[in-house]
Amino acid sequence: MKGIWLENKQIQLRNDIPIPEPAPGEALVRVLAAGICNTDLELLRGYYPYAGILGHEFVGVVTQGPDNLLNRRVVGEINAACGECRFCRRGIPTHCENRTVLGIVNRNGAFADYLCLPVENLHPVPDNVPTEVATFTEPIAAALEIQQQVDIHPEDKVLVVGDGKLGQLVAQTLALTGCELLAVGRHQDKLANLEARGIKTGFTDAVTDRAFDISVDCTGNASGFDLARRALRSRGNLVLKSTYAGNLSLDASSLVVDEITMIGSRCGPFPPALELLAQGKIDVKPLIQARYPLTEGIEAFAKAQTKGVLKVLVEMEKN
Amino acid sequence: MKGIWLENKQIQLRNDIPIPEPAPGEALVRVLAAGICNTDLELLRGYYPYAGILGHEFVGVVTQGPDNLLNRRVVGEINAACGECRFCRRGIPTHCENRTVLGIVNRNGAFADYLCLPVENLHPVPDNVPTEVATFTEPIAAALEIQQQVDIHPEDKVLVVGDGKLGQLVAQTLALTGCELLAVGRHQDKLANLEARGIKTGFTDAVTDRAFDISVDCTGNASGFDLARRALRSRGNLVLKSTYAGNLSLDASSLVVDEITMIGSRCGPFPPALELLAQGKIDVKPLIQARYPLTEGIEAFAKAQTKGVLKVLVEMEKN
Repeated sequence: MKGIWLENKQIQLRNDIPIPEPAPGEALVRVLAAGICNTDLELLRGYYPYAGILGHEFVGVVTQGPDNLLNRRVVGEINAACGECRFCRRGIPTHCENRTVLGIVNRNGAFADYLCLPVENLHPVPDNVPTEVATFTEPIAAALEIQQQVDIHPEDKVLVVGDGKLGQLVAQTLALTGCELLAVGRHQDKLANLEARGIKTGFTDAVTDRAFDISVDCTGNASGFDLARRALRSRGNLVLKSTYAGNLSLDASSLVVDEITMIGSRCGPFPPALELLAQGKIDVKPLIQARYPLTEGIEAFAKAQTKGVLKVLVEMEKN
Repeated sequence: MKGIWLENKQIQLRNDIPIPEPAPGEALVRVLAAGICNTDLELLRGYYPYAGILGHEFVGVVTQGPDNLLNRRVVGEINAACGECRFCRRGIPTHCENRTVLGIVNRNGAFADYLCLPVENLHPVPDNVPTEVATFTEPIAAALEIQQQVDIHPEDKVLVVGDGKLGQLVAQTLALTGCELLAVGRHQDKLANLEARGIKTGFTDAVTDRAFDISVDCTGNASGFDLARRALRSRGNLVLKSTYAGNLSLDASSLVVDEITMIGSRCGPFPPALELLAQGKIDVKPLIQARYPLTEGIEAFAKAQTKGVLKVLVEMEKN
């Protein structure tokens, strides 16, 4: 089969990859479409020493698996857990100590004709959700993780820093809580997507220091972090929603004096993400800026690396 | 009156300070004894641009104030709040936006014959608690703040990093929760104080990576922070209990991947701290390593700055 293969910080489109054999408890999924995520780009830059097929935001059809999933469109949670470690026993499979992670850690990913995942990771896609929309299930679930970690009330003032694809999904999910939300970035055209949803936006220099109860850094860079930090009142919560290139330098004493809580936030729950998509409560269409067939996967990555570009989708069925 | 005055990173013993006039709602307190804290030493190093009398861990006798406190021994919460800002209205006076802080921010402190504090900041000292013991109320309250911020259960594995005076008080208060506690440091003689209380101790190199649910850095230095971070399992809580000289460099991506929560922790509740002292549940005596009269306050600070020295007390009544 075909697949976009990463090795030594280089990707190539290969045609010689065997179709994978599902292990016991796993299903074989024919991929329909998959989105390029910033994590893919960081893996390409060498953020983590992964070698294999990239891709973890996908929709596919089950071709081998249990009857209730066979021939159905599915999305899949990306952490394949052992079921036996202290985290699995506590019901936190996303932190399984022996996990493989689709397209990230020791498990071939979604930019390919087929992938394998444990059956329990798969969720059917509601019929009214188009395939390209459903590719956003994984990042929307990640955005919803914030609400699993921090109680957000309508009276809370919440700041989202970053108008990229993750920042926009985070802002849309947070807006549904009814909180007093401000999303800031540097790009009028990207912020316009959120304004069209009734979300208050501004440029980064419009943020008042110490004015927010909760801030979320979706930029993964030092200046985004600093802004999210400065914006917080004492006892505020700072959510780190993106990975960072290199170390971050911060004033830890001010975290102590202001009793700030900093919360790392990663993968989240799929069922409510699918539910929001089925209800039309999240609009992902403006985020899709290009579609490429898998045979043009290298070009798709080049496009995704272009400054300012939001989501690039790779579609497997179109040649 | 006499007082230890900080200005331009230098302290001097002055004899020419007027006895302060309590403002409306404040009491005048004749100081009996006060402890030198690391924060005092950091103020001396220029951590914060404070000028005035140092000192915030004290016991005194009320000489002007309401009848129920007059002539009684008291300890005092150090944050004097405005009562009107958004934090005061939320019942969080320790984060009042207009606060003065005894011996730290715009309010003369306790290394003097007299000090003033708002009446509501004062708490009578139980008769069975000796004055020198009660000087530890403030740091014990700060140690108890951890339990206000993080739920600690008997099954939790908790690591305290740092065997200095704050680390020892933190370890003693955490031990009372019944959690599975390990306190680590670099000094056998200091760790012995904790072992005598039945607390498990070890050197810093004895800490297993990813083994703890909660870790508390009481060192205020980068290697202490790194150890506290490494010791945490995924979804663990890292409490920052000390101020840090300069910025801290950290791997923010790993905080995201492991969904670590970092919590800055400062001042805590006085009533339970006094209760623990009255019940004899915290042993502060081994921490007291020297006593100086106020007239020898400069020598007291020199002693407190000596490597390895724990608590140094300044006693006002002995000349």
